Amino acid sequence: MICLIELRRVAVIGAGMASVTAGSGRTLSELFVDAASKAINDAGVGNIDSIYVGNMMSGFLQNQEHLGALMATALRREGIPTFKIEGACASGGVAMNAAVKAVLSGLEDIVLVGGVEKMSGYSTAEVTEGLMMAEDRIKVASTGVTFVGLNAMIAREYMRKYNVTHEMIAEFPVLCHGNALDNPFAQFHKKISVQDVLASPLVADPLRLYDCAGIGDGAAALILVPMERVHEFTESSVEVLASSVATDSLSLYQREDITTFEASKSAARRAYETAHISPQEVDVLEIHDAFSVLGPMALEDLGFAEKGSGTRMVIDGQCARDGKLPTNTYGGLKARGHPVGASGIYQLAELVLQLCNRSGKCQVPDANVGLAQNVGGIGSTIVVHVLKRGD
Amino acid sequence: MICLIELRRVAVIGAGMASVTAGSGRTLSELFVDAASKAINDAGVGNIDSIYVGNMMSGFLQNQEHLGALMATALRREGIPTFKIEGACASGGVAMNAAVKAVLSGLEDIVLVGGVEKMSGYSTAEVTEGLMMAEDRIKVASTGVTFVGLNAMIAREYMRKYNVTHEMIAEFPVLCHGNALDNPFAQFHKKISVQDVLASPLVADPLRLYDCAGIGDGAAALILVPMERVHEFTESSVEVLASSVATDSLSLYQREDITTFEASKSAARRAYETAHISPQEVDVLEIHDAFSVLGPMALEDLGFAEKGSGTRMVIDGQCARDGKLPTNTYGGLKARGHPVGASGIYQLAELVLQLCNRSGKCQVPDANVGLAQNVGGIGSTIVVHVLKRGD
Repeated sequence: MICLIELRRVAVIGAGMASVTAGSGRTLSELFVDAASKAINDAGVGNIDSIYVGNMMSGFLQNQEHLGALMATALRREGIPTFKIEGACASGGVAMNAAVKAVLSGLEDIVLVGGVEKMSGYSTAEVTEGLMMAEDRIKVASTGVTFVGLNAMIAREYMRKYNVTHEMIAEFPVLCHGNALDNPFAQFHKKISVQDVLASPLVADPLRLYDCAGIGDGAAALILVPMERVHEFTESSVEVLASSVATDSLSLYQREDITTFEASKSAARRAYETAHISPQEVDVLEIHDAFSVLGPMALEDLGFAEKGSGTRMVIDGQCARDGKLPTNTYGGLKARGHPVGASGIYQLAELVLQLCNRSGKCQVPDANVGLAQNVGGIGSTIVVHVLKRGD
Repeated sequence: MICLIELRRVAVIGAGMASVTAGSGRTLSELFVDAASKAINDAGVGNIDSIYVGNMMSGFLQNQEHLGALMATALRREGIPTFKIEGACASGGVAMNAAVKAVLSGLEDIVLVGGVEKMSGYSTAEVTEGLMMAEDRIKVASTGVTFVGLNAMIAREYMRKYNVTHEMIAEFPVLCHGNALDNPFAQFHKKISVQDVLASPLVADPLRLYDCAGIGDGAAALILVPMERVHEFTESSVEVLASSVATDSLSLYQREDITTFEASKSAARRAYETAHISPQEVDVLEIHDAFSVLGPMALEDLGFAEKGSGTRMVIDGQCARDGKLPTNTYGGLKARGHPVGASGIYQLAELVLQLCNRSGKCQVPDANVGLAQNVGGIGSTIVVHVLKRGD
């Protein structure tokens, strides 16, 4: 039997974000309800058919699982199917991918997808241990290496191989901190300079404090519907042109070249094919800059710069909001904040607002196509989404 | 724009199970690879398009997340999209639901879905704490009540309200232990009597040791493909007629009646509608008997018995393998074992073997339609699947 499939098209019709903060004492439920309620109101939907929750660390830090039912109950939406989806720091991205497939499947129409993470209120040692759950506990974490330590190895090799200085890499956090000044939901509202980055405390050589995203709590949420139902709710929507997940070997020691993420390349390649676009058609970009070096690496792996030359785009001003490829326009992971399981949804929410021309002081001109890259672990899971302003 | 959807049909073409054991020292990866390799070989597939891993407690017990990339790497299948899906003890069931939607979406064809949990090697206190992650940490777990304590409240109220004795409820674990004698993958190969149940150590009054599923490690896996591709791989397959997830309020104190699970009723109602069958057409049944009282409650909530009369079906022999509705034919959670995030997949793997007439000594005659019910938390997430022998 041959079964013909006509693929649905998926639209985002609402977005909501909680402010990223540290030390507010807000619970997982309070964070999620904040973002989800905003998304639901923004979309103007009544009923929702299902909830997808991206989260990485609640079992370890809060001793709380079953976030699907927890959030449905907190939202007074008991009854509907709910799911927690985890893919380390790409938990938000993989939750979005699962939610998109739910709409494409024809089984769920109005879908709430959110990411939430609560990281503050714990010791740095606890959070450090929690982040290493992204790596192989038995073979790698047991050695005592930390997540920032692994990224420091990448930075060191990247700088050596491509003759890139720390000053050049530090331009990325400087860009992000500048953009976050205009984002009311950002964790950090503090302009920094390259010299500030290089003078900040050393965390794992060569990475310093301002090379690294901070520890914070946050949540973001989106409402998805099939394209043919957009008109029931809104005039302005954003279409999901591509949702692509790729993996690489879990651990850094298993890779040939640690200065590139193969999963980033393959996820991007598939996303461009599905969306029928080239990198040149991307107008606004959100990349996963958990550590400064990941910024230029992403620009390269996603096809915007030659290998080793990603920092040049930043230095030349191409990534600024008035540049050729505005990048991390709300501050990115570094300055908007990186509540890990939520970051992938923050990126998408920010792109939605950009594409709908609703970004206020963060707005970039004439954005038609946006791309988001969300990284789980040491490039082990990478999710690429391409969004387009609705017709 | 109106977009017409012709739903794909989804088939299971392979199943694999690891033996449920305690104390073997096997890692999460070893358990998963065992089951997944068997399923892949059973299906005869080469490439697979994606991996869905159901698991509840790895963050808490193993300090390990990112199970998707971990398992892809362990299977030497790096590159493909992977997901960890969590819904407490229904993690296996919700992973299956997500995997079914992935095939229905048209984006993934050959999908590996598995469940894995490692619970042995930890103190009872640690596992008890881990199980309570299914409930609200702040409002309920903080009181000190345990998961078995909450189920004991259900048992007490069920016995009072319906004038049911412990002897009557104890028939369910007796049935399961009898069936598990013929299951080579079962954790317990030990025939027990009603008197054994009543004489076993008290855990939470009225529930005794033999009223409760044990602590064990295990993994099970399935291979899904769209129906139209079954012929490429095999002659014998099983169709997924329905995959239905429902939730209830997270906590027991929020319910009107704790002797019934509303989510079980609503998930079943939707599953019967989708599958176009009535309860009378179910030939073989797998229900979530983590605690003895949940057996009769499930028989009632799924539409097989009047409220309060579920134990009669067991006592009358209807649930035996040669009875009218063979139930938990491989031993159920009680005797096959209950590695929580894997149980939902074990149930489905067992149904697949029954419907393909491959169950050996566990085989029931003429099984055409099977139903599985998987419960997360205190009935907060319930997944119902209906499978049918392929044409």
